[in-house]
Amino acid sequence: MANITKKVSWSSRGDDSGLVGEGTPLLNGSEAPKHSRQVSMVANLPSQLLLPLLPEEDAGSCFISHSKVTLAHSLDYDNIENQLFLEEERRMSHMSFRCLEISRWVICGLIGILTGLIACFIDIVVEKLAGLKYQVIKESILKFTEVGGLSVSLILWAVLNSTFVMVGAIIVAFIEPIAAGSGIPQIKCYLNGVKIPRVVRLKTLMVKVFGVICSVVGGLAVGKEGPMIHSGAVVAAGVSQGRSTSLKRDFKIFEYFRRDTEKRDFVSAGAAAGVSAAFGAPVGGVLFSLEEGASFWNQITVWQIKSFFASMISTVTLNFFLSIYHGKPGDLSSPGLINFGRFESDVRNFDTKQCLVYFFFLFLFCAGGLLGALFNVLNYWLTIFRIRYVHRPCLQVMEAMLVAAVTATVSFTMIYFSNDCQPLGPEHNEEYPLQLFCADGEYNAMATAFFNTPERSVRSLFHNQPGSYNPLTLGLFTLTYFFLACWTYGLAVSAGVFIPSLLIGAAWGRLCGILLASFTPSNPNWADPGKYALIGAAAQLGGIVRMTLSLTVIMVEATGNVVYGLPIMLVLMTAKIVGDYFEEGIYDIHIKLQSVPFLHWEAPVMSSPVICFNRIEKVGTIVDTLSNTSTNHNGFPVVAQVSDSDEPAKLCGLILRSQLIVLLKHKVFVELAQSRLSQRKLQLKDFRDAYPRFPPIQSIHVSQDERECMMDLTEFMNPTPYTVPQDTSLPRVFKLFRALGLRHLVVVDDENRVIGLVTRKDLARYHLGKHGLEELQLAQT
Amino acid sequence: MANITKKVSWSSRGDDSGLVGEGTPLLNGSEAPKHSRQVSMVANLPSQLLLPLLPEEDAGSCFISHSKVTLAHSLDYDNIENQLFLEEERRMSHMSFRCLEISRWVICGLIGILTGLIACFIDIVVEKLAGLKYQVIKESILKFTEVGGLSVSLILWAVLNSTFVMVGAIIVAFIEPIAAGSGIPQIKCYLNGVKIPRVVRLKTLMVKVFGVICSVVGGLAVGKEGPMIHSGAVVAAGVSQGRSTSLKRDFKIFEYFRRDTEKRDFVSAGAAAGVSAAFGAPVGGVLFSLEEGASFWNQITVWQIKSFFASMISTVTLNFFLSIYHGKPGDLSSPGLINFGRFESDVRNFDTKQCLVYFFFLFLFCAGGLLGALFNVLNYWLTIFRIRYVHRPCLQVMEAMLVAAVTATVSFTMIYFSNDCQPLGPEHNEEYPLQLFCADGEYNAMATAFFNTPERSVRSLFHNQPGSYNPLTLGLFTLTYFFLACWTYGLAVSAGVFIPSLLIGAAWGRLCGILLASFTPSNPNWADPGKYALIGAAAQLGGIVRMTLSLTVIMVEATGNVVYGLPIMLVLMTAKIVGDYFEEGIYDIHIKLQSVPFLHWEAPVMSSPVICFNRIEKVGTIVDTLSNTSTNHNGFPVVAQVSDSDEPAKLCGLILRSQLIVLLKHKVFVELAQSRLSQRKLQLKDFRDAYPRFPPIQSIHVSQDERECMMDLTEFMNPTPYTVPQDTSLPRVFKLFRALGLRHLVVVDDENRVIGLVTRKDLARYHLGKHGLEELQLAQT
Repeated sequence: MANITKKVSWSSRGDDSGLVGEGTPLLNGSEAPKHSRQVSMVANLPSQLLLPLLPEEDAGSCFISHSKVTLAHSLDYDNIENQLFLEEERRMSHMSFRCLEISRWVICGLIGILTGLIACFIDIVVEKLAGLKYQVIKESILKFTEVGGLSVSLILWAVLNSTFVMVGAIIVAFIEPIAAGSGIPQIKCYLNGVKIPRVVRLKTLMVKVFGVICSVVGGLAVGKEGPMIHSGAVVAAGVSQGRSTSLKRDFKIFEYFRRDTEKRDFVSAGAAAGVSAAFGAPVGGVLFSLEEGASFWNQITVWQIKSFFASMISTVTLNFFLSIYHGKPGDLSSPGLINFGRFESDVRNFDTKQCLVYFFFLFLFCAGGLLGALFNVLNYWLTIFRIRYVHRPCLQVMEAMLVAAVTATVSFTMIYFSNDCQPLGPEHNEEYPLQLFCADGEYNAMATAFFNTPERSVRSLFHNQPGSYNPLTLGLFTLTYFFLACWTYGLAVSAGVFIPSLLIGAAWGRLCGILLASFTPSNPNWADPGKYALIGAAAQLGGIVRMTLSLTVIMVEATGNVVYGLPIMLVLMTAKIVGDYFEEGIYDIHIKLQSVPFLHWEAPVMSSPVICFNRIEKVGTIVDTLSNTSTNHNGFPVVAQVSDSDEPAKLCGLILRSQLIVLLKHKVFVELAQSRLSQRKLQLKDFRDAYPRFPPIQSIHVSQDERECMMDLTEFMNPTPYTVPQDTSLPRVFKLFRALGLRHLVVVDDENRVIGLVTRKDLARYHLGKHGLEELQLAQT
Repeated sequence: MANITKKVSWSSRGDDSGLVGEGTPLLNGSEAPKHSRQVSMVANLPSQLLLPLLPEEDAGSCFISHSKVTLAHSLDYDNIENQLFLEEERRMSHMSFRCLEISRWVICGLIGILTGLIACFIDIVVEKLAGLKYQVIKESILKFTEVGGLSVSLILWAVLNSTFVMVGAIIVAFIEPIAAGSGIPQIKCYLNGVKIPRVVRLKTLMVKVFGVICSVVGGLAVGKEGPMIHSGAVVAAGVSQGRSTSLKRDFKIFEYFRRDTEKRDFVSAGAAAGVSAAFGAPVGGVLFSLEEGASFWNQITVWQIKSFFASMISTVTLNFFLSIYHGKPGDLSSPGLINFGRFESDVRNFDTKQCLVYFFFLFLFCAGGLLGALFNVLNYWLTIFRIRYVHRPCLQVMEAMLVAAVTATVSFTMIYFSNDCQPLGPEHNEEYPLQLFCADGEYNAMATAFFNTPERSVRSLFHNQPGSYNPLTLGLFTLTYFFLACWTYGLAVSAGVFIPSLLIGAAWGRLCGILLASFTPSNPNWADPGKYALIGAAAQLGGIVRMTLSLTVIMVEATGNVVYGLPIMLVLMTAKIVGDYFEEGIYDIHIKLQSVPFLHWEAPVMSSPVICFNRIEKVGTIVDTLSNTSTNHNGFPVVAQVSDSDEPAKLCGLILRSQLIVLLKHKVFVELAQSRLSQRKLQLKDFRDAYPRFPPIQSIHVSQDERECMMDLTEFMNPTPYTVPQDTSLPRVFKLFRALGLRHLVVVDDENRVIGLVTRKDLARYHLGKHGLEELQLAQT
């Protein structure tokens, strides 16, 4: 990872399509170039495909993830159209293609049902356990309010919280660290084409589900919505493959779908189903998977409708079972885990003048972007600190327990010192009203915010009558919850950041609404602070996660009123623009910190020279190349004949490491270079069976005799890999990569000779910063 | 267009991605191939890029559009990254890129506002005029019911209708024939990359708007919603270019956006805004433009949010002005031209059992697919008939008038002979209740369906009390309206098919609901036929237009209730599957009949050999090639040096006809092949000023001396056109074309020598039929 011979800086800007940068490469370094041919080319032709001359040792860089070392690979979204593949396609009848299509629909239905059921399970268990916990604490508080000694209640609360969180943190830290957090960064990467180990395994799902329950019941400032997206994705990956490698069960169905191209489509449908179950937003789900994995949606009509189907099924399933659980079967009014409640667009409260006022006060909601950026910056520093010092699992568990105890203590203190007593109206909808030191028939308003699951607090802030909170309560709550949520995100527990963001935003939004109303008491239109809470929630969430289109649709679907669409959208856009000025979105920060080669919507660079194989290659050479850990390449161009000189040879095809490993495992060797295999021994099935966990090269034993044999790669290689001429501009390469979801792109000269290979990793090393194209600073431990 | 030396049939099936076909080429013909080299290649390598050996005369095929001959070109969505372009990009500062981005937002806002205003204008004028017309007729009927002589009323009705329709038909047939119909097929083509002449001109917009008003007021079985999409697109194309070639005004703004890539993005936002204004469905609008123009959405996050913004603005504008017009400013309850009214998901009417019943009765709604297919087949035959015999404008006007008169007569007859009298309740919402022969305090139910604008009829069918219609009325109405609508679509008037489809479906859906309720009178849940009307409307519309994702979202947004999402989606899917078995969607039929080279989501084939230019080429050669009407190519590969032998030469770049014309016009000549131009005379601005109406080659005069000069194409050509090797499979080529929105793809051999050129037209010539890949039958006059 060291001796990079040249650093390259591009002065980049948006190209005409508004997508990627276009610019001039400036060679900063001055030492003699290693491969003078390429460099002279580069120097002569500005703004071209640049070969940054990375030494070969750099190719298989180890990426340092939070608390562990991960080798991140790319997924293959380009079909390998080799002879095997073509022959199979030709053998299949029209009928079997139709059956495949039906299977896809069935799988999407199953994904929807299972995702809905998981959401339902989480919701019911959390509600039961949290209810129990709050009941116990409430009784204790009631008991000790009179006699004194409320510290016992505090300790009870803190201990209960810490215990739940401890369980949640232990299973995450010791069993499956990838299940930490919301999982949205990981799913973003997966949809973008980065293979993250273990991210879609059954074990991850189990840990995720129980982890979420523990963290939410443990009273942390977290939500259970984000993890649903990850859960949906895991369900999709599992169901679509028709087998579980964790359980060692192969149902022998859906074998056709065992490859990256198909699996990714299903995972995207699963993520959509997850969003749909979390927020009751099927269209938002589809747009989410579109926005995050949009790069290869060149088959939109074919797949989006399936995603939509899965989303619909998932929200209906959740709704159906929840309605049965609540004893009102058929009441389809809770389509998601979080329900914003119905916002009516009554004329009185939302007239034209109000509209203009909203526009005028938008600048106030730029605050969302600022607060979001602050949140992200604080969390960034915290995460760096965690990567450096809190990387041992037991330390992580202890930190999580500490946060849980502190959360309980702070909440208790705030409630204890608050004197915001509100009358307990007849139609009060507080689940656990705490009287504490209030008069009879009154309750403590601070407790509705703190002594509650975050989902309920959000709903109270949106819908409680004007006057339910006094400004001081809201101010203090915003302040403390902001820091608690910021500290919590990134802990080794599985939990999401959506709900805490909404809660912070709703609190200060409502505060603004109250202040505004107090300045202009004459206008009754401004009396409802709930709407300000909604806009504030959108601003804060937008400022933290920086999604726009899908988030707007999700919020509109969750509020159930399209009238709020325009203000929500404007707020989200403003928050994004303001926030982006300071810091990236929280998911992008975490992706960067985990050093995953994620392709942004911005510009990149690439590398050379490459190791090529002959069409008929010596087994020994292949084994040596694959075993060489320093050249941990994943794709190898196949060329007509590598001459002994350094002259590049003509491109014939491309073969993958995984294919070579299967070939070596099945010993598809010929003894002489000239003799061809009369009978092919391998079928596509052999490749599918090995998918996706191909054995490492070390597990394959090749005898000394076999090393002298030859392998004929012709019928296994992809004979028509995508290529670009060497003077292609960077944005053009980037566009091709994103549009087709490529993993490798062969660079050829004007005689079709291989002179380089562009991989996703090469592209992701650079990003478009404020001063043109910059090299990414990898996080150092 | 004749001597095609070989016809090729592919036995195609969906490839792995479910997208495109994969198959074996079977050479049917047996005569000696003209270009034996390519053919032998093809014969040896099955399933490869096939060169169907079309003679060169075939390249510029004339496409026969309805009643006129049109030359359909492709749009260029691939940026020409030549030296001019790169230099301009380099000169531009970061600030100017930001300004461009802001301009894009401003333009999208303007598009939304203008589209909303147009929708508002159409709505108000139609309401006024139709109100006037129905008032006059109603008074006449009232007068003559008593005294006899109702035939005078009939004649009055027929004459009024015919007059309005005549005006509408005359402006369409004589002034701008492209404004006929809904414009959705044309916009689909445009978004897909086919340049249809005059489709986004100001004149077209004017004709469209007034044409729609005339046809709706003229009482035809049409809607005003479809044309809104076309109108939005025209507005977008106009605003984004900052000039009007029709009005000969150039505002000297937005000059950067004067090219196909940018313009198409704006047009797609405009189409979204149009959908949004028509149905009050901003998300549906975005999905519509995504579904129809999905091929090149590799920049989804960047553009979709802008489309969404335009959509939001358009629906808010419409709502705002309509609310002012209706005297209730701020009442944001009519977000679109058509408003389905609020469907409540009350528990009583939509319980679990009801859900299951819906699922069970879905098969009944396959009828939607069948009826839709029937509609399409009938309309297909009718259109063929029209293309053959009714292609003179005056005939078209007469046909339109005939239809208008017949519609009035049929309506009148139905009302006259109907004896379905309903009591006029206190909360009746009929606009023009006709008493006719009914008792006092009653009205004629048939008249609510016929004596009304179609939008109001749809709403009555959805929301009127159970028992408002008797089954016979509905049955007769369905039957007559079906044939009327079928006859009407394709007339030379500008009008849409959405509302008639909804109306037919709502009528038979309500009929089904009534019959069902009468069989099971015990169950009060089935008493509301309005819900069946909604499902029926969805089924019929889906069966006719065959959209799925976007249509579901549009319907859900129009009903304002996400609970109906799943049944609507299932109905639309069923209708599509059933309908596709018989016939394509109505828009695809009309696209096919107009023989536009539209790229479907299915597989294609391509052609060779090509005419190449040298980097430094003789002016005479270029002029001759461009002038040769039989080789009406639009893109020419530039090669290193064309040898005199038939050997192909190495590819250097690609240059377009339009570029060459600009070069010729500015006489960028050098006298000797060896001398290079010291000073370049042309700027990108010169190309932009000529865009999009490049002068024909005939208008450029080149003297005999100049013919001997040379032109240096190096700095104007695109130096890195996308290429594929000759053995690339068809689906792969197709994927590349769709994903990147290409117009030309150069086919090279393994030494990078040009051996063919794939154009959109070549790909569109073939389509995937029931028996594999079939050659498209072009419509013959």
